[in-house]
Amino acid sequence: MMTDLETSMATIIAVFQKYSEREGDKHKLKKGELKDLLHDELPDLMASVNDQAALDSLMESLDTDGDAECNFQEFMAFIATVTVCCHEFFKDEHE
Amino acid sequence: MMTDLETSMATIIAVFQKYSEREGDKHKLKKGELKDLLHDELPDLMASVNDQAALDSLMESLDTDGDAECNFQEFMAFIATVTVCCHEFFKDEHE
Repeated sequence: MMTDLETSMATIIAVFQKYSEREGDKHKLKKGELKDLLHDELPDLMASVNDQAALDSLMESLDTDGDAECNFQEFMAFIATVTVCCHEFFKDEHE
Repeated sequence: MMTDLETSMATIIAVFQKYSEREGDKHKLKKGELKDLLHDELPDLMASVNDQAALDSLMESLDTDGDAECNFQEFMAFIATVTVCCHEFFKDEHE
């Protein structure tokens, strides 16, 4: 029996793998896989990102070595950043 | 309707808040709140951490400013680190 927190961590890993294993290196997201993941799994975020430059910059920053791939560590850092932003948003909402 | 990934991110925020709001600054985990969270929400991890020095070092590193509190950003960085370790473990398991 997993706790909600453990299930959440396992889900993040599973979502990454669902897309990363589609083609090429099965442990890395190609740019197309990353785009599909963001579109399908974070639709609310994608819909509310109205600053295209910020999104482009984000995707570029994830692909640190320029091979158009994103490994799990880079993906997790992105998810952490987004989650911290969400926390700040809701924290301010409830002040 | 939230996706599994969105639900996972919301759950991490909710788990943090469940413990951080117990006493003192409601947006920060006191050391006791952090200990309770780890014990209750990551029991498998806590059970398998047999290197006490590593755990002490981890808790110390989370409390960067020495005020015995851990804000959400610090907590999220910890969860990200643990999740990356889990991913490495299962990745190696399935090679």
